[in-house]
Amino acid sequence: MSSINSISIIGSGNVASHLGEIFKNKGLSIDVVYNHSIENGKTLATQLNCQFTDDASKITLDSDLYLIALADKHIEDTLCKTNFTNQLLVHTSGSFDSTKLEQFSHRWGCFYPMQTFKKKQAINLKGSSIFIESKSKEDLAQLRKLCQLLNCNSYILNSTQRKQLHIAAIATNNFTYHLYSHIQQYCEKYNLPYSCLEPLLKETLKKIDLQEPFTHQTGPAERNEKQTIENHLKLLANDKYLAEIYSLFSKQITDKHNEL
Amino acid sequence: MSSINSISIIGSGNVASHLGEIFKNKGLSIDVVYNHSIENGKTLATQLNCQFTDDASKITLDSDLYLIALADKHIEDTLCKTNFTNQLLVHTSGSFDSTKLEQFSHRWGCFYPMQTFKKKQAINLKGSSIFIESKSKEDLAQLRKLCQLLNCNSYILNSTQRKQLHIAAIATNNFTYHLYSHIQQYCEKYNLPYSCLEPLLKETLKKIDLQEPFTHQTGPAERNEKQTIENHLKLLANDKYLAEIYSLFSKQITDKHNEL
Repeated sequence: MSSINSISIIGSGNVASHLGEIFKNKGLSIDVVYNHSIENGKTLATQLNCQFTDDASKITLDSDLYLIALADKHIEDTLCKTNFTNQLLVHTSGSFDSTKLEQFSHRWGCFYPMQTFKKKQAINLKGSSIFIESKSKEDLAQLRKLCQLLNCNSYILNSTQRKQLHIAAIATNNFTYHLYSHIQQYCEKYNLPYSCLEPLLKETLKKIDLQEPFTHQTGPAERNEKQTIENHLKLLANDKYLAEIYSLFSKQITDKHNEL
Repeated sequence: MSSINSISIIGSGNVASHLGEIFKNKGLSIDVVYNHSIENGKTLATQLNCQFTDDASKITLDSDLYLIALADKHIEDTLCKTNFTNQLLVHTSGSFDSTKLEQFSHRWGCFYPMQTFKKKQAINLKGSSIFIESKSKEDLAQLRKLCQLLNCNSYILNSTQRKQLHIAAIATNNFTYHLYSHIQQYCEKYNLPYSCLEPLLKETLKKIDLQEPFTHQTGPAERNEKQTIENHLKLLANDKYLAEIYSLFSKQITDKHNEL
């Protein structure tokens, strides 16, 4: 069984760019970048010093691994245009069902790195977890070796488990950004010192490291102070988004802490 | 004008305990702890090596400062039973309207430390912010000196501004705990590796330090991937709380990022 030495990349978004760069830096050969949109794809191909094509039928078939880093809804449409027969195809999505790749190749799998990727922002995957899945044990062993090369922990999860974990990742990352972006914009709107929240945030997160967030809860909802909550909702009358979050979270916190 | 050298504390909850301990360690004299419930109050008084009373009419009247660390709804009821005439009364609440203290003394104010307090968990206020308010400039100057003694930044805010800021603090602290307590419980329920989320959380928070959370947003809602969101909501059918949060946040993120 040969190792994975050469990789082609289908897609040129955040995940494709970062993984491509990391693979290249680890000494793997990048054969081809495919992308529907020429501009993005060419930029990445230049960066990775490899060929580019915007014609899926021209993706060469001799790479050891095809990394499919596309939005879920574009994966099947794109693969329909390729000529894959029995190449190793892995997607990088938390929510895509890996068995859907079976129609394009009997060697399919998943390589889902749990991290947040944004173009033009350096990312260090070291110590992160990559969730892998594969039809065959041999390919799984190769994917595991690839994780080791990246200094990442690897976990084998089936598609259902990975989808569940993906939800937890979305809540951890996307929802945290969303919450804090509201707080920041709210503070700016009312000329409140947002930077004063930093020590509070640090203390909050220090306690979350202890991994018992529930027991650290304080605040008006935990104490079931209905009047304070009502007053706050009145104050938030012109801040629809934050009012919706305040209302839902307060209700849930009150319910959860009064269940006990 | 004399400095604040002696303090009495009304209440014996999280804030009363921590501030009492910090004041004592800074060499201030603690005169009396009052609390409605004898057990909690006595414990704190013993800790602070001071007198205890559960009879508000017996609170001695010669302290330089009376720190009122009660739940908002108990402040007025409790103060009705005291014999204050012109003592300096300050509450510690983010949401209480300071002018309501006027009926008990013409020297009133607020001393609201923006931190999260839990009993039996050491807290270091150094570098935190305390939001002060007072009827008179002289008392304000004394409160500011008290903040300096605690190595805290002090900001003068009126009650409306402080209430607005309190909402931001609740969102930062209480809502973060709530979100992560759901994630933890969800991971445990489905036997998913919660600890794998830690590198993601660290990366998320590293970016929040840059104070532009909005620009870091990724994920299915930001990309308006309706099918993924629907699938996730189906997967969350047995997780009501997390489903409600997922639904609201995804809707808001999609709306906000498509407004542009």
